[in-house]
Amino acid sequence: MSTSANGTGTAPLLARSVRDLREIIAQWRKDGASVGLVPTMGALHQGHMALVRVMQEKVDRTIVSIFVNPKQFGVDEDLDDYPRPLEDDLAQLASVKVDAAFVPEAEMIYPAGFSTIVSVSGLTNFMCGKERPGHFEGVATIVTKLLLQALPDAAIFGEKDYQQLLIIRQLVSDLDIPVEIYSAPIERESDGLAISSRNRYLSASDRRLAPALYATLQSIAKDAVENFNYRSLESRGIEALLEAGFEDVDYFEFRDAETLELALRSDQAKRLFAAAFIGGKRLIDNVAL
Amino acid sequence: MSTSANGTGTAPLLARSVRDLREIIAQWRKDGASVGLVPTMGALHQGHMALVRVMQEKVDRTIVSIFVNPKQFGVDEDLDDYPRPLEDDLAQLASVKVDAAFVPEAEMIYPAGFSTIVSVSGLTNFMCGKERPGHFEGVATIVTKLLLQALPDAAIFGEKDYQQLLIIRQLVSDLDIPVEIYSAPIERESDGLAISSRNRYLSASDRRLAPALYATLQSIAKDAVENFNYRSLESRGIEALLEAGFEDVDYFEFRDAETLELALRSDQAKRLFAAAFIGGKRLIDNVAL
Repeated sequence: MSTSANGTGTAPLLARSVRDLREIIAQWRKDGASVGLVPTMGALHQGHMALVRVMQEKVDRTIVSIFVNPKQFGVDEDLDDYPRPLEDDLAQLASVKVDAAFVPEAEMIYPAGFSTIVSVSGLTNFMCGKERPGHFEGVATIVTKLLLQALPDAAIFGEKDYQQLLIIRQLVSDLDIPVEIYSAPIERESDGLAISSRNRYLSASDRRLAPALYATLQSIAKDAVENFNYRSLESRGIEALLEAGFEDVDYFEFRDAETLELALRSDQAKRLFAAAFIGGKRLIDNVAL
Repeated sequence: MSTSANGTGTAPLLARSVRDLREIIAQWRKDGASVGLVPTMGALHQGHMALVRVMQEKVDRTIVSIFVNPKQFGVDEDLDDYPRPLEDDLAQLASVKVDAAFVPEAEMIYPAGFSTIVSVSGLTNFMCGKERPGHFEGVATIVTKLLLQALPDAAIFGEKDYQQLLIIRQLVSDLDIPVEIYSAPIERESDGLAISSRNRYLSASDRRLAPALYATLQSIAKDAVENFNYRSLESRGIEALLEAGFEDVDYFEFRDAETLELALRSDQAKRLFAAAFIGGKRLIDNVAL
């Protein structure tokens, strides 16, 4: 696979409407090519590029969608301030030979009268689902739409938004969307901070403190190899983050890697998840055990 | 179009799983055939056969799905008693040369852990949406699933469930499901009663009274040609139904034919909708103005 149509590193094909997108894909399908989608909100970084690399190994043609989805932002969240460096994004996609970029306008994705919501129960009840009401309904709805707009053979999501990844796997299975969902591990800065489009908003001093989130996750996860009192380890993690300079900790929890139920047993496959505020910015991260 | 694969009137191909269904359709697609889906809950009657006839004129291969969807029944509704005359249904499909029947088990459609819901706001707030909480979420979820299981070129729904038809059009548009939705007018018995799988549950005396529902709709709709006081006409309709022997009237309302908002103006395209109980059975019907 992976004989890119875009072998010269020139700009990807640009689709600004669902019709454009479907025309591009129909042409590829006629040529027998398999198609992969990498949904993003733009402000592309190494994390996205890692998703692209994995996808390019799985399919013949790779599309990156760039859409800052208003429905997944809360009323007091940073929708208006979310970065939209489109030119830089497209240049990055060209440099890694992505075949097409899908960059729709919000009015096209949610025209007047739009009134359908996709929601996943269970997995959305805690962690970011609890702290950001409506967030995952917005995610589930836009992902369903993007998958049905493109009908790709495969799509990929990062493990940084691990809860989102599981919710998407669930809805794809539940709604019988004919697509293979891949994931890729978290990409990190050299000091361990999980790469995120929102990191650019950290002040210089907060940026220096921010790697404590990953360091604490690692340190507590290491302790959990011998200490199975997860609730007590979680308390220690929260204290460590507050001492390191985080103002508030939304959650710091050992959870089952598949159901996201609170981890209870040492023989469970689990991950340790955290969300915490520094300088008013909310960072999330997680590690496998 | 309409060169049926099933020209001899033999039994339709029977798919009992999504995998079977997709294999059958993939084979048709390879032959360049277009595909239409007629979703039903079985207990097939003239109304369903009318949908099949329309679909057979639109596409090369027609599938009828038969699935009594538990998610669209309320806790005190008739899920267990809903008729399931599968042999008779398949014989009817053979007689009209339907190409395939999709008859999945409930455990396959909703496996353990199923947790995704599709909901449409606005259109579901009144009429049957108000009287049957959760009903239209169940409908929206199963229709989304069936459409994504089959990915047909077209699907068709009857105007008897007019509110359902509009909700399905809305979700297909909102979720970008690549399918054309057709509709067909209500089929009626010779005395005017709208044909329904549930009519068989009416006692002989209730069956004789039941046509009053359509007669009242017709009579009040006729009055509305000159009298634009819709709220007063609605009251008269309700009174007429109670006098005719209906125990209770859920609604009797003039509504906009597209938005389903209560009709206010004489120049609006509208329909008159009714739901009423006779012998404990709920009948619905509607007429265009």
